[in-house]
Amino acid sequence: MEPTRYKRKIYLEDKPRSEAKREILEAFQLPLEVERIPTTTALGRVTAEPIFAQNSTPHYHASAMDGIAVIAESTYNAHEQNPLILKKGKEFSYVDTGNAIPAPFNAVIMIENVDILDADTIEIIEPATPWQHIRPIGEDVVQEEMLFPQGHMIRPADLGVLLSSQQLELPVVKKPVVSIIPTGNELVEADSTLTAGKIIEFNGAVFAGFVQEWGAEPKLHSIVKDEPQRIKAALLEAAETSDIIVINAGSSAGSKDYTVHIIAEIGTVFTHGVAARPGKPVILGKINGKIVVGVPGYPVSAYLALEWFVRPLVCEYLQIPEPKRQTVTVKLGRRIVSGMGAEDFVRMNIGYVNGQFVANPLTRAAGVTMSYVRADGLLVVPANVIGYEQGEHVEVELLRPLEEVKNAIMFCGSHDLTIDLLSSQLKRVRTDMKIVSAHVGSMAGIMAIRKGEAHVAGIHLLDPSTKQYNLSYVKKLLAGQDIILYPFLKRMQGWILPKGNPLEIHSIDDVAKKQANYVNRQKGAGTRILLDMLLTEAGLSPEEIIGYEREMFSHLAVAAEVKGDTKGAGLGIYPAAKAMDLDFVPVADEEYDLLMTKSFYESESGQLLIGIIQSDHFKQQVDKIGGYVVVENAEPKSLS
Amino acid sequence: MEPTRYKRKIYLEDKPRSEAKREILEAFQLPLEVERIPTTTALGRVTAEPIFAQNSTPHYHASAMDGIAVIAESTYNAHEQNPLILKKGKEFSYVDTGNAIPAPFNAVIMIENVDILDADTIEIIEPATPWQHIRPIGEDVVQEEMLFPQGHMIRPADLGVLLSSQQLELPVVKKPVVSIIPTGNELVEADSTLTAGKIIEFNGAVFAGFVQEWGAEPKLHSIVKDEPQRIKAALLEAAETSDIIVINAGSSAGSKDYTVHIIAEIGTVFTHGVAARPGKPVILGKINGKIVVGVPGYPVSAYLALEWFVRPLVCEYLQIPEPKRQTVTVKLGRRIVSGMGAEDFVRMNIGYVNGQFVANPLTRAAGVTMSYVRADGLLVVPANVIGYEQGEHVEVELLRPLEEVKNAIMFCGSHDLTIDLLSSQLKRVRTDMKIVSAHVGSMAGIMAIRKGEAHVAGIHLLDPSTKQYNLSYVKKLLAGQDIILYPFLKRMQGWILPKGNPLEIHSIDDVAKKQANYVNRQKGAGTRILLDMLLTEAGLSPEEIIGYEREMFSHLAVAAEVKGDTKGAGLGIYPAAKAMDLDFVPVADEEYDLLMTKSFYESESGQLLIGIIQSDHFKQQVDKIGGYVVVENAEPKSLS
Repeated sequence: MEPTRYKRKIYLEDKPRSEAKREILEAFQLPLEVERIPTTTALGRVTAEPIFAQNSTPHYHASAMDGIAVIAESTYNAHEQNPLILKKGKEFSYVDTGNAIPAPFNAVIMIENVDILDADTIEIIEPATPWQHIRPIGEDVVQEEMLFPQGHMIRPADLGVLLSSQQLELPVVKKPVVSIIPTGNELVEADSTLTAGKIIEFNGAVFAGFVQEWGAEPKLHSIVKDEPQRIKAALLEAAETSDIIVINAGSSAGSKDYTVHIIAEIGTVFTHGVAARPGKPVILGKINGKIVVGVPGYPVSAYLALEWFVRPLVCEYLQIPEPKRQTVTVKLGRRIVSGMGAEDFVRMNIGYVNGQFVANPLTRAAGVTMSYVRADGLLVVPANVIGYEQGEHVEVELLRPLEEVKNAIMFCGSHDLTIDLLSSQLKRVRTDMKIVSAHVGSMAGIMAIRKGEAHVAGIHLLDPSTKQYNLSYVKKLLAGQDIILYPFLKRMQGWILPKGNPLEIHSIDDVAKKQANYVNRQKGAGTRILLDMLLTEAGLSPEEIIGYEREMFSHLAVAAEVKGDTKGAGLGIYPAAKAMDLDFVPVADEEYDLLMTKSFYESESGQLLIGIIQSDHFKQQVDKIGGYVVVENAEPKSLS
Repeated sequence: MEPTRYKRKIYLEDKPRSEAKREILEAFQLPLEVERIPTTTALGRVTAEPIFAQNSTPHYHASAMDGIAVIAESTYNAHEQNPLILKKGKEFSYVDTGNAIPAPFNAVIMIENVDILDADTIEIIEPATPWQHIRPIGEDVVQEEMLFPQGHMIRPADLGVLLSSQQLELPVVKKPVVSIIPTGNELVEADSTLTAGKIIEFNGAVFAGFVQEWGAEPKLHSIVKDEPQRIKAALLEAAETSDIIVINAGSSAGSKDYTVHIIAEIGTVFTHGVAARPGKPVILGKINGKIVVGVPGYPVSAYLALEWFVRPLVCEYLQIPEPKRQTVTVKLGRRIVSGMGAEDFVRMNIGYVNGQFVANPLTRAAGVTMSYVRADGLLVVPANVIGYEQGEHVEVELLRPLEEVKNAIMFCGSHDLTIDLLSSQLKRVRTDMKIVSAHVGSMAGIMAIRKGEAHVAGIHLLDPSTKQYNLSYVKKLLAGQDIILYPFLKRMQGWILPKGNPLEIHSIDDVAKKQANYVNRQKGAGTRILLDMLLTEAGLSPEEIIGYEREMFSHLAVAAEVKGDTKGAGLGIYPAAKAMDLDFVPVADEEYDLLMTKSFYESESGQLLIGIIQSDHFKQQVDKIGGYVVVENAEPKSLS
């Protein structure tokens, strides 16, 4: 793991993103490659040339109605007082919509205005004007008319005009081939047995998905070991067989980050590092005429870098504009701090509460894929802005349809596994609705309701003085607001311990005395408050607990840490211990209630949620998890 | 063509669209079918069950940085004045980002803060805190956490979390199979030789495209003749082999519109006719448990009916919400009249002129596919609204990305073939820009500039009194506005005549005397004004010209009509005659100029356009068409 023959490069550039992009676009000069494909397979493809109509539509004078074709001039005397009788053949002909108008007829009378006397005879009482209800040749498309310019992406309806004018083949731009090269000794295929230090290679599949959505053809290389010769060979091969090259990881300044040196050796490096976070450690270069983009290993950095540099190349190749996301103005629920001199891309949760969009940042850790998956939007803080204050209004790019964001129920507060069940049930009943949950702890949940940033908060806060749950906190913190406290669950809290409970832990005293590696919850979490109460009651100080400062944000996260450590211990709910196959020693039965604004409780969404909670189906599913009882015949407390 | 054994049904219902939709959704009760597919192929598919993480990510304590792993507690005394020296092995270990933290280490120090003394020795001057720069187990995903609820459509980044937690297979909802049955004796395949009355079957390909975009699997049936037994057989087969049935045409009240009777015979008809235009003559029914949607033959009606009724069925099957289009508020450039009692779906062109969106209706003829293809948006006039006044602000659903609409140059006025060339050239230079042109004639072009609805107008208006082109009209109609009149083309106008000029037409007198079937242009078109001047000069009245009242909207449309009629005659530009292989007798050399607002002329887009016009490449392309001369060293006239 020592430094190798390539000098370790520690500092990266801070080139503005726009400048870095301009440079590669200028260097990207591949000839246009045209493919002629059957029109019926052209959906989503891009025209390589302007397309002119081969034929007119209609290509003959066509009846625009169901009715009869007549000679207009022969009907001029028809009148209610002077009905005109016409004989089939010379005087009229039946036509349906789309039929050719037989000579010598030059007008159509709608069937509704025709009185059929017998199979060969009709009567009309109104004259026809010449060319009435006849579609002229080329009403839709005129031969030689330009149907589409080049650079047009074919949509379903476009197929109609193309086929109707007998354009059976279409010249389209060849899809650019994007080679994707994952590198790293730590990488293994998704079906491997995992050992510590081994990471599943999944970025490649994600890149392939993005690239495909942008209209290119991904070419996913197998995993390449961190060996300069292998990386070099893979890059040179990709330069031969593809139009754009993406190489993943090795783009930073680690002891095995060879990529930049290799590209410099066999090609040109334009950029190593851009002034944008996450995604800074990007490499942009050129090998044998092909642009190579070295993207960082952290997933979120990688996805952003791909969008910044690979998408423009694909669009340039296809000669189409880069798509832009819809934006929405949101009120910030929390302050956002950003460093000067670099753009900051912050993943945001957005909720529509009390008639306005409220947004909160998700974790900014670039390794947390879920922060991108869960995000509703992306806030781009420009390089010269040091951040935004809570309550400020900012523009956010949407990662989901606005409607989906608008219909989401914002759930905040303490984490509980049944919220997932609730979410799943809700989506089954109403496909256009969902629950978006932020695990921030009970106290933060109350504050979110207070600030109008959430519809519902899950809370379980024990008041040490009264030994009562929730009510005293709500009364104190939400005085003056119209609130409903809805009794939801009784659930079991206890010690989460490694299988077999090797340290024999049965109390907080044991945790301290037996020097367990305790895994704590964050400040403001109901479980943290419970732990602090246990410490006070036992006369212990936080310093006596190893790991007191190590904070996790959910019961499952605590359980996961305990699972990995034979000396581990945590406090949490029974189902978390059960899910991870751990031991559990009960400590307290607690009340987990739902706090809602009164307006939400009374709304259609609120009542829908309550309906699901009270359904037998939901209760049965909660029973299956174990360690829970859904409160029967719950009586919501109305506070104000 | 006489009425058959099925009674001809003339009047359709006017059922509200929402009611008709609710009925079929209620009747649509197919069991959920789940497929387990490899996760890597799941892009765009919809989860059939909630997906829980199989594994935590990271699944071990991982270094979050490149650097060294240490025991935090052993570094507490490190200080600038008291550097701490550590030996590789027992005291520290090199780690790269993602590496597992070897026991007994519990903190990482970034490489930037490490002084490497030799291969085995380093020095630090700052202490580490426990667990710093270490990613806890499950930082990204915790085992047993719900990753996605059911009904989630998989996006590229989702593949990452799924694969990283070793979800190698995914339970997804089977794509519903949508059978598409085109019917009609007039239909032929796209590669057939066309004869009058034969229409290319292209709706099927369009439907298949839509259905595919919505996430279903289209199954396109071959063309079925208008024979009850064949239609019945096709419907029964489709009910066996698919989940949703679409049958095209035969849904109205023509003499061969059997469909509704057949569905009633072998199943149930819920609806025949909805209160919405176009798209009214729709049939909704059920055959052997499968919903059948009979859509009208006119393409635009068909596409709308498909969206109204087939898309909700597909979404319901997949358990996803129906997508909604982004909307934009526009100012109406023209009055829109709508009948009471039925919704009206009006295709609109939208331009962004002088900082506001201005929209004008395209033709409302349901047979004009191009009105849907060319549309930027869809204005839905509710059933109880009789229309909107010019200048009113209304909400329009976007059929293209807002950005594309915003970047379009609105071209209005007289039709000329070189505008297509200009459009194509512009798109080559700037992929994000395009020209949207409305062929409304010169006068209407001037009015569009006056009302701020267009950036550029193409005009060729001869002043009979001065024999001068354009200037006098512009001065009179745009007095007080800052305007640029840009000399663009000299082009040849003349008689467009059938090959060989069978009637030997050389003047307007010939047109009248030889009783040619004249094909006229619309009022306000420059060519119409030229014709009227020729009539006046020859002392002829419009009544002496057969077809004077038959108006076409472009030179090509006139040429297309002339081509189909050996007695035809029209007035138009040389390239239109040439394109259709027709005879041409010159009448006048005219000046076709571009009129622009001064602000557009001076804008980046305006200068880009002028640059293209003056480029050699563009002039060469115009030369190739023939009958044109691009004005060299044009001197724009500035008027105000």
